[in-house]
Amino acid sequence: MNSAAFFDVLASITDRSRNLLSRRDLDLAQTEAASGLIDLCEALLSGRGEASGTAIATEVLERYLHLDATGRLALFEGFAEKFGPDRAKLADAAESWLRDPFSADASDLHYFSEARRQELFRRLNRAPGGTHALVRMRADLLELAPNHKALAPVDRDLVHLLSSWFNRGFLMLRRIDWSSPAIVLEKIIHYEAVHEIRDWADLRRRIDPLDRRCYGFFHPALIDEPLIFVEVALTEAMPSAIAPLLAEDRPAVALEQARTAVFYSISNCQRGLAGISFGNFLIKQVAEDLRRELPKLDTFVTLSPAPGFLQWLQRDEGPALSPENRSLLESLDDSAWPRDALAAERLRRVMEPLAAQYFLKAKRADGKPLDPVARFHLGNGAKLERINWRGDLSAKGLRDSAGLMVNYLYDLDEVEKNHEAYANQGEVVASAAVKKLLKSETRSRFGRAAAASIT
Amino acid sequence: MNSAAFFDVLASITDRSRNLLSRRDLDLAQTEAASGLIDLCEALLSGRGEASGTAIATEVLERYLHLDATGRLALFEGFAEKFGPDRAKLADAAESWLRDPFSADASDLHYFSEARRQELFRRLNRAPGGTHALVRMRADLLELAPNHKALAPVDRDLVHLLSSWFNRGFLMLRRIDWSSPAIVLEKIIHYEAVHEIRDWADLRRRIDPLDRRCYGFFHPALIDEPLIFVEVALTEAMPSAIAPLLAEDRPAVALEQARTAVFYSISNCQRGLAGISFGNFLIKQVAEDLRRELPKLDTFVTLSPAPGFLQWLQRDEGPALSPENRSLLESLDDSAWPRDALAAERLRRVMEPLAAQYFLKAKRADGKPLDPVARFHLGNGAKLERINWRGDLSAKGLRDSAGLMVNYLYDLDEVEKNHEAYANQGEVVASAAVKKLLKSETRSRFGRAAAASIT
Amino acid sequence: MNSAAFFDVLASITDRSRNLLSRRDLDLAQTEAASGLIDLCEALLSGRGEASGTAIATEVLERYLHLDATGRLALFEGFAEKFGPDRAKLADAAESWLRDPFSADASDLHYFSEARRQELFRRLNRAPGGTHALVRMRADLLELAPNHKALAPVDRDLVHLLSSWFNRGFLMLRRIDWSSPAIVLEKIIHYEAVHEIRDWADLRRRIDPLDRRCYGFFHPALIDEPLIFVEVALTEAMPSAIAPLLAEDRPAVALEQARTAVFYSISNCQRGLAGISFGNFLIKQVAEDLRRELPKLDTFVTLSPAPGFLQWLQRDEGPALSPENRSLLESLDDSAWPRDALAAERLRRVMEPLAAQYFLKAKRADGKPLDPVARFHLGNGAKLERINWRGDLSAKGLRDSAGLMVNYLYDLDEVEKNHEAYANQGEVVASAAVKKLLKSETRSRFGRAAAASIT
Amino acid sequence: MNSAAFFDVLASITDRSRNLLSRRDLDLAQTEAASGLIDLCEALLSGRGEASGTAIATEVLERYLHLDATGRLALFEGFAEKFGPDRAKLADAAESWLRDPFSADASDLHYFSEARRQELFRRLNRAPGGTHALVRMRADLLELAPNHKALAPVDRDLVHLLSSWFNRGFLMLRRIDWSSPAIVLEKIIHYEAVHEIRDWADLRRRIDPLDRRCYGFFHPALIDEPLIFVEVALTEAMPSAIAPLLAEDRPAVALEQARTAVFYSISNCQRGLAGISFGNFLIKQVAEDLRRELPKLDTFVTLSPAPGFLQWLQRDEGPALSPENRSLLESLDDSAWPRDALAAERLRRVMEPLAAQYFLKAKRADGKPLDPVARFHLGNGAKLERINWRGDLSAKGLRDSAGLMVNYLYDLDEVEKNHEAYANQGEVVASAAVKKLLKSETRSRFGRAAAASIT
Repeated sequence: MNSAAFFDVLASITDRSRNLLSRRDLDLAQTEAASGLIDLCEALLSGRGEASGTAIATEVLERYLHLDATGRLALFEGFAEKFGPDRAKLADAAESWLRDPFSADASDLHYFSEARRQELFRRLNRAPGGTHALVRMRADLLELAPNHKALAPVDRDLVHLLSSWFNRGFLMLRRIDWSSPAIVLEKIIHYEAVHEIRDWADLRRRIDPLDRRCYGFFHPALIDEPLIFVEVALTEAMPSAIAPLLAEDRPAVALEQARTAVFYSISNCQRGLAGISFGNFLIKQVAEDLRRELPKLDTFVTLSPAPGFLQWLQRDEGPALSPENRSLLESLDDSAWPRDALAAERLRRVMEPLAAQYFLKAKRADGKPLDPVARFHLGNGAKLERINWRGDLSAKGLRDSAGLMVNYLYDLDEVEKNHEAYANQGEVVASAAVKKLLKSETRSRFGRAAAASIT
Repeated sequence: MNSAAFFDVLASITDRSRNLLSRRDLDLAQTEAASGLIDLCEALLSGRGEASGTAIATEVLERYLHLDATGRLALFEGFAEKFGPDRAKLADAAESWLRDPFSADASDLHYFSEARRQELFRRLNRAPGGTHALVRMRADLLELAPNHKALAPVDRDLVHLLSSWFNRGFLMLRRIDWSSPAIVLEKIIHYEAVHEIRDWADLRRRIDPLDRRCYGFFHPALIDEPLIFVEVALTEAMPSAIAPLLAEDRPAVALEQARTAVFYSISNCQRGLAGISFGNFLIKQVAEDLRRELPKLDTFVTLSPAPGFLQWLQRDEGPALSPENRSLLESLDDSAWPRDALAAERLRRVMEPLAAQYFLKAKRADGKPLDPVARFHLGNGAKLERINWRGDLSAKGLRDSAGLMVNYLYDLDEVEKNHEAYANQGEVVASAAVKKLLKSETRSRFGRAAAASIT
Repeated sequence: MNSAAFFDVLASITDRSRNLLSRRDLDLAQTEAASGLIDLCEALLSGRGEASGTAIATEVLERYLHLDATGRLALFEGFAEKFGPDRAKLADAAESWLRDPFSADASDLHYFSEARRQELFRRLNRAPGGTHALVRMRADLLELAPNHKALAPVDRDLVHLLSSWFNRGFLMLRRIDWSSPAIVLEKIIHYEAVHEIRDWADLRRRIDPLDRRCYGFFHPALIDEPLIFVEVALTEAMPSAIAPLLAEDRPAVALEQARTAVFYSISNCQRGLAGISFGNFLIKQVAEDLRRELPKLDTFVTLSPAPGFLQWLQRDEGPALSPENRSLLESLDDSAWPRDALAAERLRRVMEPLAAQYFLKAKRADGKPLDPVARFHLGNGAKLERINWRGDLSAKGLRDSAGLMVNYLYDLDEVEKNHEAYANQGEVVASAAVKKLLKSETRSRFGRAAAASIT
Repeated sequence: MNSAAFFDVLASITDRSRNLLSRRDLDLAQTEAASGLIDLCEALLSGRGEASGTAIATEVLERYLHLDATGRLALFEGFAEKFGPDRAKLADAAESWLRDPFSADASDLHYFSEARRQELFRRLNRAPGGTHALVRMRADLLELAPNHKALAPVDRDLVHLLSSWFNRGFLMLRRIDWSSPAIVLEKIIHYEAVHEIRDWADLRRRIDPLDRRCYGFFHPALIDEPLIFVEVALTEAMPSAIAPLLAEDRPAVALEQARTAVFYSISNCQRGLAGISFGNFLIKQVAEDLRRELPKLDTFVTLSPAPGFLQWLQRDEGPALSPENRSLLESLDDSAWPRDALAAERLRRVMEPLAAQYFLKAKRADGKPLDPVARFHLGNGAKLERINWRGDLSAKGLRDSAGLMVNYLYDLDEVEKNHEAYANQGEVVASAAVKKLLKSETRSRFGRAAAASIT
């Protein structure tokens, strides 16, 4: 039985009587299917594959859909073992280069060391829908990779190709609004990762009012599939809390009153593109386009969560806390605190300085801030503009950061300079107000009279 | 004077008073401009480049437009010398891999040997219009490369990226007809490389009648720029000459009568994409689409020139010719022969067997046929179906091939098999009729009674 | 105070302090606003209106939005009184025509009798969004017309214009699916008049599966506003009940299995276009398009309600019922009957013949069938194909027709002939099966042995 | 033989052997074909026509294409005679209205006097391509109407419908540029009526440069068919001659320098829409759009011909001319005068005042200016801004107006007022400079010293 015929049998088994097979039989069938696919991949890399146009590539991608985790693992392991570089040629090139590294051109070394799977992926990409299929294949690979170190080079190659193909120059910025196709909008509902969109009525409130915008990057090979999108609110002033922005009955801001564009939610959509960053380009492009369209806008700012704040507070390596503050922080466990104005104010006096410490001082081993959202925006050249106590009193907001939110400011004329300071000196570029909180924090740690006085 | 300011001065010089400068001063200015651009490219590769969005890339590409050949050479030499791989890291990786080539993963070797210019090109691609700018940069590079061997690795890297970016999966097939934008159509007129399109009326005859089609591949980043296009005539039978297909007053074939799709002209449009092949995919895709749209079509065939035929006849390594045939061939110099039926028939008896010999026997050092058009279609899996004496009596046709044309047949069910025979055994897949000509050729060489008898 | 200034005051009053004004003051203000609008309409009809481009028309339509029912009534009465024809010219034309009716051309009579409001409406239509505004104005007019006979000529003129403008030749058939803009889809949810669409998930089940279609007519001047739409299910056989078609978990029919296109819901969307019929054209166009796209489809049929059936049964002029049948019909009041198989079967034997009588015999004064849905489809040339007992067991279905549904068959080759029979002889074209029911009905009325035997 | 079968015979005769038939036989065949079409039109108006969807309408329009002038005349005469109003009903309505004209509603009178051909045209419009077919039918009608008075009511009805259907509210303004489809552009070349476009290169110079614009009105039912288009040049100052605007090698004006939009050519495209005016709306819409896009534009002006000027000069009712001037004007016959600076200047002194007289004083019986272009622009509310001596030295320009051109100024804030003055007081709104010429004209007529002094 040749592999294709075998595969047909397998497919029919898969569909009809999967439950009747023992796990062991199934695994065997999957492994054989993967092995048949490996052969087909070899054919695709041969001259025959060249002549067949896109037929073999299409068949590989269709068969791939029938693999389960066992089959996929077998296939990816095949990619790792059998589709590396031609080792003999590579050895020659490596020796030849090492003999005279400073005059020799390293091109041969580079191209002879390219794993054959790169060409395999490029040929798979020729099939209709190939790009999307490879993005999903990468998502599958990411599921398996953590437990299978041998797959790392496969992932490295796939990421390399996808990075090149999803280069900013190929992305199209599209506005997403109530005239967008439902097939796109349902993905916005699905992929929104920051402030959940509950249903279509909720979606409409996010994208339809005149003072709301949503923009996404799309790739020409992935029709109707956003890669990343950002939700923007146009407001008069920089907002300090999320709830008023999302309130069902809020009055809309007239466009001529708007001075501030607030990026309050950015969501990546394609798990298979993890590690390929679009957010930096998206924010800057949207900011530039909005500035052109609405010249009165002068402030471009985020309203961002501080997802690691509370965890840091509770870590052993977290901040030194006075016993008083420590007990005060325990009151956070009482879910009623946000409704107790006095308690909330008492907490604010302690929490704001701690937050300043978290953003300005708490660093990872590599010297970057602990907070992942901060790393993203500071890395883009934004400035930590303001810390907002009681910015997000939703269950998630309270759980992650005791309700604290942050504004990062994108001053397009400053982002390069800010980025340099951050990248080269590790400086967290922050407003005077945030820096001042840090000093008050220092004070509050050692002299607690002020904090006590309001009780 | 920093490089940007210097460049501004240069630009103004360039525009206003170029003629007043000595060539030497100009070259100096160009070399300095190139040097400034190299610095800017370094900035683009730095973290600052990352933070700047697309601004620096845009500036590089704009400044590039002001370079003349001297400046471009200096820049490309800079790309060759200064934007290779990091040699220290690469040496480590090479040694480490050579130590244990059969267990070690070659990924590090591959990625450390990647020249920095690859990332540079990827970042340039982020700018608006970047892809098109890089394609044009490659065309400039191709001008210089033959005389400057050091540029070869730069070209290799650029081709590598462009091949990946212009992968079949990203190309869009579009029909080109009388409803297409003029901005596209004028390029069809301009790029047509096989049978000249004289003016708009001539163009309309090629694309507007119901029995004429034109299709092109486009890339989403190159709006309104065809990459390659093919002109198709729908006919009842396989045609043996080009003039009737292009005649101004020809009657159109009713669609329901058409059985044959004739690919009578394929033209590449982008010099900067030389070496990246689209034609194979284009022909097969168009054939498949036409078959779906018009199920009565059963023959997909070219009407192709034989550009090297006459040159081969006249070469020393060309065919052995009897003195009689040699003198007969001399009559080709008399431009009146096509109008002399007897002379033409006499020539036919000699030329057809010689053509068969040319296609079936005349090979390059690598075993492939001498004729470049034959190499392309045979490599695609087509079959040499028929040799057409007096197929193209235009000046160009007579000059290249004494008016001879060829039909290559695309039988979609046979192309894989044909390709294998061609690629593996070097077989020129040909029809029985063409092969028979070869035998008659053998005969005609040794016994010339037949040829003589008609005089 | 000129009318424009007055209007501005009114507008500000309207927005801010409407509640503070007495109803009487408000009415006065509205009447004055209407009077100002009448003046503006006169200006629009003057040469000044011609020169102003679309400015005055735009202003009229904007001011109109501020009128409430009182203001609108005053305005429409103004249209009736002040924008009729020029009576002097008309009298001349009428007399002149009556003098010699058989040789004279009636053109003058026709054009002099045209009410000036027709030109007024045509000029209003020039404003951006004018067509949609006039459609909504007609809807407002329809609210008031029943109680104000003087408005009838205004309505007649508006209908005349809208009929001409919404001529079939200007309508565009568009498929509505999951790729349609949300702004269109929400209107589908809103306007669906036959089988309610509960939410977006429900909508998706209606338009996204491969065996479901939805098509609407659109007008180029009403972007994103469907005029009418039809929902179609592709099935193997003619369906007898609606619930299986709408079931959430139904399996989709493979396209190659589908033989029947079922029009199971047609909804008009624009109240202001009441009386202008699109349904006939829509069904036939969709049937033709589907037949072209899917040549295996051979049956085009509706699954329709019988909205007047139960009401007719209960009318005094309804059918003569035996006491037994009368008491049997009383069991319909017990909402449990559909779940009692024996009761349902007993009812079926009585109800089907009664339904046949309802469709074939029950007529209005004008000789047309009582049932409005029957009038629509028979008028289109469809044939009453089948009566489906227990076709719609929803609350609405039970309430209107005791759950009975009907299939009307559109045989495109027969519709002209059927229409003629219906229009000229008043014949209800019906299948033999339906006609046979009628005979059984006659029998069951006089000899009830059969019906009794199953008890 | 029924009319359809007869028609088929006719069609085949028409195509094959038209030349063999005598004119008389042909006329007979055409008349019978027209008669068959009349029957089909009756069917279309019947209920059967309603049921047939668009099939009968389609057939009528297809058969119409086979009629020659004889057949068309017979058909149109049929429309005039047989498709008038129902005279009996109309008589009742007329009498009933005359009995009480001041209280009675004239609606019945209006709708009963509507000729049945109006509904016929509306039903023909339902066919695919029906609108375009009716526009072409009107063009045919216009050919015949001048010699056949009985067709006037048919034309009146057709114009009425087309006016309503081509209402400004249904027209779409589209920019026409080098990205427009060739199928549209070739029509621009063809329809340009003012300054001939010689070929595609010439067209490109009109629409592709940044300082050139072209806009057209399109109707949704006439795809790719412009109704009217205007060519616009963006310039720094108001131009006084056409040649520099059209010069092949002229330098383009940078957009930021442009202050003036010059409408230098307006062409109607559809002969069948003669009498339905779009130009007024087109100019104002384009002016408004340009002002929004390029806020620095402050002058909107035409550069227009004076087509009747020279003819007026030579008429008996033309201006009173002194013998000297008369002989001077004779020098216009010498085609060399434009190249003789002195002669040209001498002519200017006479011609400019005469032109002022032509525009300001020369009137038709209805009090409107003689010049048709002046009537159009003044009727739109434009102002006669400047008379340009030697504005158009092309053969056509010299022949029509001795090379004189005119600027009409569109001041959007003044057009209503200007129009009123023109429409109500018959005032030709003109600049002080033009009015001053008139005075000099008066002077020059009586005292010729000044004119003489330069000789």
